[in-house]
Amino acid sequence: MSSTHPYNQIILFGDSITQFSFDPELCGFGALLANIYVRKLDVLNRGFSGYNTDWALPILKQLLPSIKEQKETANSIPLMTIFFGANDGALPFSPQHVPLDRFKSNTKAMIDLVKNPESPLYNPKMRLILITPPPINEVQWRKQCENNGEKLNRTNEAARAYAECIKEVGRETGTPVADIWSKIMDKIGRDDRDLSEFLLDGLHLNANGYKELYNLLLSTITERYPEIHPDAVGYELPYWRDLLAVDNTLEALQFPLLANKPTEI
Amino acid sequence: MSSTHPYNQIILFGDSITQFSFDPELCGFGALLANIYVRKLDVLNRGFSGYNTDWALPILKQLLPSIKEQKETANSIPLMTIFFGANDGALPFSPQHVPLDRFKSNTKAMIDLVKNPESPLYNPKMRLILITPPPINEVQWRKQCENNGEKLNRTNEAARAYAECIKEVGRETGTPVADIWSKIMDKIGRDDRDLSEFLLDGLHLNANGYKELYNLLLSTITERYPEIHPDAVGYELPYWRDLLAVDNTLEALQFPLLANKPTEI
Repeated sequence: MSSTHPYNQIILFGDSITQFSFDPELCGFGALLANIYVRKLDVLNRGFSGYNTDWALPILKQLLPSIKEQKETANSIPLMTIFFGANDGALPFSPQHVPLDRFKSNTKAMIDLVKNPESPLYNPKMRLILITPPPINEVQWRKQCENNGEKLNRTNEAARAYAECIKEVGRETGTPVADIWSKIMDKIGRDDRDLSEFLLDGLHLNANGYKELYNLLLSTITERYPEIHPDAVGYELPYWRDLLAVDNTLEALQFPLLANKPTEI
Repeated sequence: MSSTHPYNQIILFGDSITQFSFDPELCGFGALLANIYVRKLDVLNRGFSGYNTDWALPILKQLLPSIKEQKETANSIPLMTIFFGANDGALPFSPQHVPLDRFKSNTKAMIDLVKNPESPLYNPKMRLILITPPPINEVQWRKQCENNGEKLNRTNEAARAYAECIKEVGRETGTPVADIWSKIMDKIGRDDRDLSEFLLDGLHLNANGYKELYNLLLSTITERYPEIHPDAVGYELPYWRDLLAVDNTLEALQFPLLANKPTEI
């Protein structure tokens, strides 16, 4: 049970690129989403730096409400983003590496938890967006590895394969994909720019990279889930000038979710 | 009940200055807190633009968990900020105005909900910080009022009185006060600066103002509640390199709050 009146929630589930997405200086997509949905939906950061899908799957089983809990709870999760691969796609000698076939089955298993009516965590109201791992800039990342006394442990070719895998899972499961790998690579090619303009250290997104991802997420929501676009979701409690006009102020200050009039999203 | 595994939470309760505090471009204190506490505590925005303490009190009664709910719930609220006054302190002809004596009794009533053992919402684990309303820059705000076809509806003298009132309530109830009114006014005086450097429009904080407030909150936490300083609160789930070293990975990936080993804060 939430310790405070719950709003409906957006869950951002992922690795460091999600964990660091609340950084305002990096214009992190999490911070931007939390702001654009303020007073509408809570945006919760469930990013775990360094994690891969082997570790994500048991975490997700604890994050999600059971069917019973969903019935007992006032609020729901209209949207969850799933954003792994940056660590799974590390080269095979790395302890973070998860082979492509298991990355695919782990990702499908995470979707299945939510989408399969046989799942005890079946959650028909939850929309999903998969996000592809971003490109790797080997020039920058090699320096990071060398600073840690390690050899280069990621390549853009591997990142591309894991991104393609996510797109495949998206097609096979009917789940929208925000393909940030292609978005950035297309921009590089088209505008003759360098990957280092979008990446902090060759692996993590910088402000430019995060802005691309934020815009991509918003357009994915606009295309596939317009009913939860920030402009389509109402504020919790009336705009103050409207409050002045109501007959019964106390009634107008009741949260709909608590009065069992759930917002139908 | 939360729709997803609950972390402990910081609640930011207030008016527009809280609602807008998730704006990364404004370096809003909410966005900065959410980031510094990421993977440690959820920071929830419960800001309601334009609201005063008359409207805040009935809202708070719905926001807070009952004693029963606190027992049934895995997570708790280690901290709540209460940040009103900017609207209460509007001039008496304004529909947002709340007279000083009622502002004081409303604020004490909100504290009492949490601190009084007789209250059904008594929450001994919850720490409170009161925040004084910021200064008003009448030059800037007059322009805003005129743009709305209104006469000046706020003064810094009124803001000062409401700020003093909050400090009085803080002393009378033993609640820490983050006095942003004095902090900004002192800076103006000492460094010969203008209020417009800290305020967006004469009422709302800009990035400079929000940074002052964020720093003030962190130092209030450091002085009065060091046990919940971000450096003192551990991450949910192990750092990934530590995960590699454990015997039982699945066990290490169990959220303590769900395993009934609540983090003692």
